[in-house]
Amino acid sequence: MAHTTDSSAPQSARASAGTRLDPWYSSYADRSLGMRASEVRSLFAVANRPEVVSLAGGMPNIEGLPLDFLAEMTARLMRERGPKLLQYGGGQGEEEIRTQIVEVMRHDGIHAHPDDIIVTTGSQQALDLMTEIFINPGDVVVAEAPSYVGALGVFRAYQAEVIHSPMDNDGLIPEALEDTLTRAESLGKHVKFLYTVPNFHNPAGVTLSLERRPQIVEICRRHGVIILEDNPYGLLGFDSEPLPALQTYDPDAVVYLGSFSKIFAPGYRVGWALAPYAVTQRMVLAAESAILSPNMVGQLSIAEYLKTYDWFQQVKEYRSMYRERRDAMLESLSEYLPSCSWTVPDGGFYTWVTLPEGLDAHAMLPRAVTHRVAYVSGTAFFSDGQGRDHMRLSYCYPTPDSIREGVRRLGTVVEAEKELVTMFGAERRLTHGSAVDHPSTETH
Amino acid sequence: MAHTTDSSAPQSARASAGTRLDPWYSSYADRSLGMRASEVRSLFAVANRPEVVSLAGGMPNIEGLPLDFLAEMTARLMRERGPKLLQYGGGQGEEEIRTQIVEVMRHDGIHAHPDDIIVTTGSQQALDLMTEIFINPGDVVVAEAPSYVGALGVFRAYQAEVIHSPMDNDGLIPEALEDTLTRAESLGKHVKFLYTVPNFHNPAGVTLSLERRPQIVEICRRHGVIILEDNPYGLLGFDSEPLPALQTYDPDAVVYLGSFSKIFAPGYRVGWALAPYAVTQRMVLAAESAILSPNMVGQLSIAEYLKTYDWFQQVKEYRSMYRERRDAMLESLSEYLPSCSWTVPDGGFYTWVTLPEGLDAHAMLPRAVTHRVAYVSGTAFFSDGQGRDHMRLSYCYPTPDSIREGVRRLGTVVEAEKELVTMFGAERRLTHGSAVDHPSTETH
Repeated sequence: MAHTTDSSAPQSARASAGTRLDPWYSSYADRSLGMRASEVRSLFAVANRPEVVSLAGGMPNIEGLPLDFLAEMTARLMRERGPKLLQYGGGQGEEEIRTQIVEVMRHDGIHAHPDDIIVTTGSQQALDLMTEIFINPGDVVVAEAPSYVGALGVFRAYQAEVIHSPMDNDGLIPEALEDTLTRAESLGKHVKFLYTVPNFHNPAGVTLSLERRPQIVEICRRHGVIILEDNPYGLLGFDSEPLPALQTYDPDAVVYLGSFSKIFAPGYRVGWALAPYAVTQRMVLAAESAILSPNMVGQLSIAEYLKTYDWFQQVKEYRSMYRERRDAMLESLSEYLPSCSWTVPDGGFYTWVTLPEGLDAHAMLPRAVTHRVAYVSGTAFFSDGQGRDHMRLSYCYPTPDSIREGVRRLGTVVEAEKELVTMFGAERRLTHGSAVDHPSTETH
Repeated sequence: MAHTTDSSAPQSARASAGTRLDPWYSSYADRSLGMRASEVRSLFAVANRPEVVSLAGGMPNIEGLPLDFLAEMTARLMRERGPKLLQYGGGQGEEEIRTQIVEVMRHDGIHAHPDDIIVTTGSQQALDLMTEIFINPGDVVVAEAPSYVGALGVFRAYQAEVIHSPMDNDGLIPEALEDTLTRAESLGKHVKFLYTVPNFHNPAGVTLSLERRPQIVEICRRHGVIILEDNPYGLLGFDSEPLPALQTYDPDAVVYLGSFSKIFAPGYRVGWALAPYAVTQRMVLAAESAILSPNMVGQLSIAEYLKTYDWFQQVKEYRSMYRERRDAMLESLSEYLPSCSWTVPDGGFYTWVTLPEGLDAHAMLPRAVTHRVAYVSGTAFFSDGQGRDHMRLSYCYPTPDSIREGVRRLGTVVEAEKELVTMFGAERRLTHGSAVDHPSTETH
């Protein structure tokens, strides 16, 4: 369409490519300046090359899903309920799926009411909404050390201060949490919530023991701190049924986040939060402001899948598929990385590897990619620069053979790095350290 | 699942219903305290009763969509591309749909590159992301008087100050905008953007004239203010092809928001923003933090629909359907509300009615609902309490016969109110005014 313009902007250039300069740089909000691409994200470009074995990603392997069933189910929904499927819904999400979610959560021992549930665009949005409604800039979130990179990004976006509290093989350490909270309070900080992934932790691969669960809840209750319990992997245990959710110990003090991304499929972007009623209603207000309503096609498709398919049988198939990959991972680690140690996950997607003394996972990554294997450096999972001696390895997406080949390559890389450290010692390590903050280090 | 609990929370009570008390009230962030249900939302409960003719909602009428085609298309996508459809996507949205969006925007005269587009969960999320990355608490957004209620909610959530700038039948008045910006600057305020709906304005029903478009762009450019151009209805003109978007006059100074909700269907929750490259990249970072990625089922379904269906023919059908309803609305207004005046929309969903001297749309609403007709009071569309003498009437969803019946009922209500005002004069009006802030006035 031809029309006059009184602007001097180089319009034809715009049509071919975006300019990298930013005329609006000085206009951004303070919170925007803290947002940056996560280490995980900037890895994707290289990790997705076909010759690279990626032990970096968190994508579920959804090849086993019943596509024919889903095709027929979706077509039927569209024919019979199209005008509902294609219309706006309510901000809290459809009661139909919230009722199903109540059933899903029974597996975690939760007795919930659909009114207390909000359906979100993945549980990531629930994280975002909780942080939006609770965090003033400078408020504190206590999170595990290490913690989910996507949650740390949300906390940073809302200018929260993250304080990490240590874990061992049984998850969060109650005494240490008590110390962390007491110390923060004595410094006058407002600790708003504890963010925790109690089951098959991302990235640590550990599970909070049954014994510690009531202790963690009691400590937080005493300190007036909400628990944000994030449980995307809870049903994907390899050896036993799920432990009771933290939510079951004190429903008034816990906001529980769930997701269909790992127990079914992420492509619909449907997750949820179960919260005390008043908190849920605030999340709904924030959600309506953010997106009006969650997508109806996803909500009604998943509700129908849960009603008409043996979805728990699918969960069992996921469990055995991921167990096989976990086994391949652990066996390969024993064979190829004897100088490392690692956690032994009973479920979920990840193991957390500790490198030999002197090695730096962050600095080692370019060499690993050169050797056609990718992982995520432990530094991604801390807000304070910790984690250089760790890497997260995921076994969810590659085949067992690929996992073995990837770990074999990683073994070569680690051995080579060890030689360097032996030759150059601490000096080498410092060089690595300073390279990290160099802005041109794109793959970090 | 049986388990011990050391908490005193009344768990069984929780299972049956949520408590209305909020133990976390003192923990909320400042921004959360400004969030409240919009007037539009709180109307829904009554407006949706079957006996009420709702001229209040903004839901598109999607009855004409080709459900059989969509059923077959969706089934085919699931069978042939299921693993992609059901997986996570990238934070910016799929290139496949961004390429299609470039084509859609050509109807607005826009020459864009897919790299400059971010796919969002409805254009509402684009509004949210823009506000998130640009607005510090206390920053100013200039918006039309009146303005879209959902945008005002977002601005309030980020603690922006909204300053309204007046319109006439040709949309925003350039001289008044110049004054508004100059006055705000002289008060030391940071005006970050102008939020405008140039085509078939919600709620005003007017369109920014061709002549004024370059003037508005030039004024904003001179004042260093970004334009946030929200264009959900642009293709739904009744009499002529769309005017060129503001974006075409200065692509470096305009962020353009589009949506499939009105030209196709809202149920997939797919909208988009076209912005200068650097701004787009910041929106992507914020979006990844908020939701990781937009839903794949919606993106790939809409991309396929645009590629394989005559989507523009569907737009033409929408146009003629909505034109018929607009005509029913305008004819009924002439017949039943002779003491009111109203705008004459050339497209879109709404007309903006001015009540006779002394009447208060906000206070009149309970009487209207009693007479089984609903509208939105003009007060919903201002951040500063203006709008009592206006109501928004929408003709998008009810049938022409329902529209006529609804307007007839509204005529009865207006006449009765006029009599009251004649009898009691200004005193009556004051009573109405004070009733508004009464917390138990649920339907307001």
